[in-house]
Amino acid sequence: MSSVSIPSAIPGAAHRVVIVGGGFGGLEAAKALRGAPVRVTLIDKRNFHLFQPLLYQVASGGLSPGDIAAPLRAVLRRQKNAEVLLGEVGGIDLAGRQVLLKGMGIEYDTLILAAGATHSYLGHPEWETFAPGLKTVEDATEIRRRMLFAFEAAELELSPETRRQWLTFVIVGAGPTGVELAGALGEIANETLREDFRRIHPSEARILLLDAASRLLPAFPEELSRQAERSLIRLGVRARCGVRVTGIDREGVTIERAEGVERVAARTAFWAAGIEAAPLARVLAAGSGLTLDRAGRVIVRGDLSVPDHPEIFVIGDLAHCEINGRLVPAVAPAAMQMGRYVARVIRKRLAGQGTEPFRYADKGTLAVIGRAAAVADFGTIRIGGWPAWLAWLFIHLMYLVGFQNRVLVFIQWAFHYFTFNRGARLITGGSRHRSPSGTV
Amino acid sequence: MSSVSIPSAIPGAAHRVVIVGGGFGGLEAAKALRGAPVRVTLIDKRNFHLFQPLLYQVASGGLSPGDIAAPLRAVLRRQKNAEVLLGEVGGIDLAGRQVLLKGMGIEYDTLILAAGATHSYLGHPEWETFAPGLKTVEDATEIRRRMLFAFEAAELELSPETRRQWLTFVIVGAGPTGVELAGALGEIANETLREDFRRIHPSEARILLLDAASRLLPAFPEELSRQAERSLIRLGVRARCGVRVTGIDREGVTIERAEGVERVAARTAFWAAGIEAAPLARVLAAGSGLTLDRAGRVIVRGDLSVPDHPEIFVIGDLAHCEINGRLVPAVAPAAMQMGRYVARVIRKRLAGQGTEPFRYADKGTLAVIGRAAAVADFGTIRIGGWPAWLAWLFIHLMYLVGFQNRVLVFIQWAFHYFTFNRGARLITGGSRHRSPSGTV
Repeated sequence: MSSVSIPSAIPGAAHRVVIVGGGFGGLEAAKALRGAPVRVTLIDKRNFHLFQPLLYQVASGGLSPGDIAAPLRAVLRRQKNAEVLLGEVGGIDLAGRQVLLKGMGIEYDTLILAAGATHSYLGHPEWETFAPGLKTVEDATEIRRRMLFAFEAAELELSPETRRQWLTFVIVGAGPTGVELAGALGEIANETLREDFRRIHPSEARILLLDAASRLLPAFPEELSRQAERSLIRLGVRARCGVRVTGIDREGVTIERAEGVERVAARTAFWAAGIEAAPLARVLAAGSGLTLDRAGRVIVRGDLSVPDHPEIFVIGDLAHCEINGRLVPAVAPAAMQMGRYVARVIRKRLAGQGTEPFRYADKGTLAVIGRAAAVADFGTIRIGGWPAWLAWLFIHLMYLVGFQNRVLVFIQWAFHYFTFNRGARLITGGSRHRSPSGTV
Repeated sequence: MSSVSIPSAIPGAAHRVVIVGGGFGGLEAAKALRGAPVRVTLIDKRNFHLFQPLLYQVASGGLSPGDIAAPLRAVLRRQKNAEVLLGEVGGIDLAGRQVLLKGMGIEYDTLILAAGATHSYLGHPEWETFAPGLKTVEDATEIRRRMLFAFEAAELELSPETRRQWLTFVIVGAGPTGVELAGALGEIANETLREDFRRIHPSEARILLLDAASRLLPAFPEELSRQAERSLIRLGVRARCGVRVTGIDREGVTIERAEGVERVAARTAFWAAGIEAAPLARVLAAGSGLTLDRAGRVIVRGDLSVPDHPEIFVIGDLAHCEINGRLVPAVAPAAMQMGRYVARVIRKRLAGQGTEPFRYADKGTLAVIGRAAAVADFGTIRIGGWPAWLAWLFIHLMYLVGFQNRVLVFIQWAFHYFTFNRGARLITGGSRHRSPSGTV
């Protein structure tokens, strides 16, 4: 490799750990290596850690991006054996043991790949223009822009038919993200904007939540699916399950059911139906001959390392990790456990000790539907409504990185709870995809 | 005109007041018409009122855009005689008394133009690419992105010369905005980022504040200029006055002084040197044969109406209003006073009463330089340092629209004061102008 090498800026220990990705897994691994006899280099293409479970609240104008983001440098500021580099990894030189960043090489002794996942449009990348997904801060402000703009366009629209199209929203995918977005949109239409318009009634908005599965929240127990559906109906959201989306364009969504093909005229659609591993998995596979699973994830061994490359670990949403035939789910707690586990493995290896394989402790799953409504599956305990909502609130505040963020989010939730208002409902930025209107 | 007419959505009174622009002047006019026997239509191309005096804090990562913005619909929600429309006014039909919006016409009996101002690059529009100005939320996040990215790029840069270019910042224009931006940047370099990097020392950043005038804050008394300069020096900012900028490109700024031409190698520059009236002034002038002043503003009569068109008022930064030979300054308090005055004129006209010409009550001027440093000119009282800073804090919190915003800003200022941290320092969005680096 002819690239210039960037040495570690950390003095001391010789063993260099390079972590790619500052999400839940990568950041947790870096933090768990505090005080270990290693030099940690965390690389991310963003300068902040994003608390993705609350991203839908940015998309629905309840929180600002800054409230759910923590600058990576600030998080690791006092960890003397860690440094942060901003950049996108373009390749991995497996033989030379370096990752390539802007044409420069960063050598590693141990490499942890934690680049996460991105949307998957199931073979229809052209749908992204008409139905953005929710993974990044930019996605969230784009969804917020379209959501709010639709009501503005309807207010100015003289044709009843077009106005109805502007007031119809389709959300594809009824997993937790889709349910949360639909619930927030229902609240916006029925509460936040209730008195804001003079020509339209925002509560006339039609919000359709589509999924190919036979019920919403398919990963949850059936009773909780039913409970979630009841909560959504109260917010004016109609869930339609067992339907397959076969087309999305600027004027609507085409769906297929047992009964036949149907067209939903809608000017606004959002995508929450599928994710796939970040392209870094393919970069790794191309160089190593590794196989990826159908979602593009790296199939890892019991200790989360890669076959034939014990010095490379893959964690979080980028990893396909099966334990006793069950796939570890792509959720934040799993990524964090993997990060901590890999840090432990590195410490043990350096101490010359052996390690046990990774075990996943399933703490349960939560989905929030709106004001005082949520469902929670803690294995033996399944709850809905108020208690689940309080659990959701408490857990999310607790895990949010940064004391300041916790205070700001708490205050905004309190305001929102008592006033129904959403302080951050700004229409900003041009469309990265298309302008919903020719003139604005 | 063949355009479709959009009738008012407000029932009752026949007299229709159309206000273009929801800034300080327009919004204040709309609010002051509450309860008046008129139907108010407020048109803005954004869905929110922006508290521009704090925009530099968004640009420097201290606040989020949502904290200093209030949705116009929320502000006017309970004002029964007002409605809000989102859109950009493309023309004015003076004879037919309607403004044109997306090809539709909105009839008025009284028209208030309050579209504000935008940057002026003094005949060099090509400079905008390399030195963005600070007027909109998008400007602020773009400046934030470039400011933070420069330190990241320096950290990864191996060439000492290029690294020095990345760590050199030029701010053109030493009025309040330039001084505030420079002070915030000085704090970021010396406090916020102090321990965040491993290869560079952010405090080595060179921050140059340039102005063609003989001293910074030329609109302030001389003693306050000197005091501001001392405060800036403590933050590592070097003010260079009496220099004329003759070129800006991606690698630096060319300046001309009495001593000759000089080149400052810098990868990041910001523009705070000039503003001009929004294009709406030209739209009005084209149809009416009105004359504009050099900054493109509409020269108004004593009652802020336009010559030959008593039914059209121009207020705020869009207006050139001279009182006893002195120009009313382009500041928020003046715009608000104009808005309230025009509302009073409209009420009196409808009641068949005469009106006095507009009088401007100058409450003083403030500029903040950083932590516990500001200058204030209240006419007879001139203060600096702590007392001015406290006055600044109090006044800005008091005038911020929305109780929730006030609480959020106060908390973030408190955090910032005690921890030096800036919670909203996110690098987001691509560049609208140019990418500072080919690869990120």
